[in-house]
Amino acid sequence: MKLTIERSALLKALGHVQAVVERRNTIPILSNVLITAGPDGASFAATDLDIEIQESVPARVDREGMATAPAHTLYEIARKLPEGADVTLELSGDDPRISLKAGRSSFSLPCLPPGDFPMMPTEDLATRFTIEAKALARLIDKTRFAISTEETRYYLNGIHLHAADSDGRATLRAVATDGVRLALSETDLPDGAAGMPAVIVPRKTVQEARRLLEDSDDEIDVSVSEGKIRFHLGKAVLTSKLIDGAFPDYERVIPRDNPKAMTVENKRFAEAVDRVATISIEKSRSVKLSLDDGMLTLAVNNPESGQASEEMPVEFGEGSFTIGFNARYVLDVAGQIEGNEAQFHFADPASPTLVTDSGDPDALYVLMPLRV
Amino acid sequence: MKLTIERSALLKALGHVQAVVERRNTIPILSNVLITAGPDGASFAATDLDIEIQESVPARVDREGMATAPAHTLYEIARKLPEGADVTLELSGDDPRISLKAGRSSFSLPCLPPGDFPMMPTEDLATRFTIEAKALARLIDKTRFAISTEETRYYLNGIHLHAADSDGRATLRAVATDGVRLALSETDLPDGAAGMPAVIVPRKTVQEARRLLEDSDDEIDVSVSEGKIRFHLGKAVLTSKLIDGAFPDYERVIPRDNPKAMTVENKRFAEAVDRVATISIEKSRSVKLSLDDGMLTLAVNNPESGQASEEMPVEFGEGSFTIGFNARYVLDVAGQIEGNEAQFHFADPASPTLVTDSGDPDALYVLMPLRV
Repeated sequence: MKLTIERSALLKALGHVQAVVERRNTIPILSNVLITAGPDGASFAATDLDIEIQESVPARVDREGMATAPAHTLYEIARKLPEGADVTLELSGDDPRISLKAGRSSFSLPCLPPGDFPMMPTEDLATRFTIEAKALARLIDKTRFAISTEETRYYLNGIHLHAADSDGRATLRAVATDGVRLALSETDLPDGAAGMPAVIVPRKTVQEARRLLEDSDDEIDVSVSEGKIRFHLGKAVLTSKLIDGAFPDYERVIPRDNPKAMTVENKRFAEAVDRVATISIEKSRSVKLSLDDGMLTLAVNNPESGQASEEMPVEFGEGSFTIGFNARYVLDVAGQIEGNEAQFHFADPASPTLVTDSGDPDALYVLMPLRV
Repeated sequence: MKLTIERSALLKALGHVQAVVERRNTIPILSNVLITAGPDGASFAATDLDIEIQESVPARVDREGMATAPAHTLYEIARKLPEGADVTLELSGDDPRISLKAGRSSFSLPCLPPGDFPMMPTEDLATRFTIEAKALARLIDKTRFAISTEETRYYLNGIHLHAADSDGRATLRAVATDGVRLALSETDLPDGAAGMPAVIVPRKTVQEARRLLEDSDDEIDVSVSEGKIRFHLGKAVLTSKLIDGAFPDYERVIPRDNPKAMTVENKRFAEAVDRVATISIEKSRSVKLSLDDGMLTLAVNNPESGQASEEMPVEFGEGSFTIGFNARYVLDVAGQIEGNEAQFHFADPASPTLVTDSGDPDALYVLMPLRV
């Protein structure tokens, strides 16, 4: 195998694929990137057995073939090479090492047999649709923060992506929850997605897919089966296994008819919550919201580190009301609100609160209160 | 005690003083900042028993007195308050808590008795001189990277600051070494510094003093005794104990007459070293320099991760020569070189190498070679 590739193209492709490679691997081949030189140029692939990313790059191919190289090392070398350098990768005969040459730099790196590289079978996935990269990025951004990190609740360790019916409108919907908060974001259902299976996309896949979408104005092809999802954007293909579990019936916990509505200026509210939470108890981050006559008082009482309170005017027509939340969760939600205003819809101090965004009718958030 | 202070002035002062407060303290008062409201405004002080920083800030004082408050918490609150806010700090009668009010925010924080705060005695230190903040910052920056972190060699855990004779010129000299490398930087001896004791300024003091100097074009007053050093810049005073130990006779290890000189373009050299070191052995970071006929070859050989080499033209009139270094140490030195060129002065592959800077005749570096 022998190919020559422009350094910035190599760096970009390696940046995408090496990200799935775990820092520590018990199986050596998984630390490597698979390099293929074919009639159409080069391609780079990496996998952790659950996710596989492949990216094609234009390259001058002098000799077709395959090789492997340590993914993080190769990426670091590419990063440190001067801009504009031409990089030649070569594996000759029975040489157990792959050579990299660029200008006056020359590297010889260990190369495991390409045949050992565990490529996923390239099966077709039944459902295929196309969506704008920005729309998919939005579904991810507005929900990923609520993904559970509890490994025992593995079926919550991802984003639940599915076709939904939103008051008669067909949508592609993303939902994540960790049991004490929930985030939902949806967009018009793309053509072809109607029959898609409801799936749970693992956290790491969400993260790597989001990395591919970065700054892209293009469209992305998504294909899905019961067990796998594939994202195809430009020259990159990410294929991932899905979480094999049942996502809970989240619709039941979304309180659509909470009667008490509070409207706050979101930025100012978030800053005030952040301030009073400075002295909150590390573990619960508990902050109390007291409403009375159009005035919201945020209060924190921590036996160790003192008390804090702040007042701000809000719209609230329901007399007095008191409820407590984890400030971190409130701030996570506030960070996703696009409009000037957030609406909190309360039922009672022990029931889930619905939060909506004046700037995005396609997103909603649910927060479980804390006892305060 | 009651005082009102502008938020940005409070934040700046707290930023300086809270930095000396350790995250974990077995003595509770050391987590606190001492607040003094006097006839001339407010002052804030913090200490870790070895270093004390005090900073005066203009403030409207309604009631003179003293109080304490948790340093990191107070800093975090000040940071989160809106720009331009007026902050009122008040301690009333026997209240065990200090109150902070700004706009509609209000905090009540635990306050330990100000009398418990361990202020250093305000003795005069015998030697006093004035130096430009930028000149002192330069002495620090060019040497601090070589400070040893080995606690058993406590006498190397700081910068050795002293009056020196540099070929007949009186200088203020800073030296740091960890036994395998040494950095020296000097400047004209300020008036009044001639009789100063030779001292060892601890790493943390170096760091905090450097923080005070940040972006300052002013002059700084330095006073020194056998046991203490004090930096006085603007409204801030940092007083620190010194390391009680004997700094080694470093002059003996500076090889002033090494015969073989290599001149390299520093930036290009550093980039090349960084590249080949990508695959060096994590622990030694060993890189081999081979000189032959005006060409330098940098080479790394790591049984696990492969080989790397890079060539670059250099000025070298001494035939062939080979020597090895820890790449990280070479890069630390290269990072301090101001001129376009660095000069390496070699004796033999087992003896210390001197490195000088074409852009700064007042600095020099010594590197112990590695066997390669």
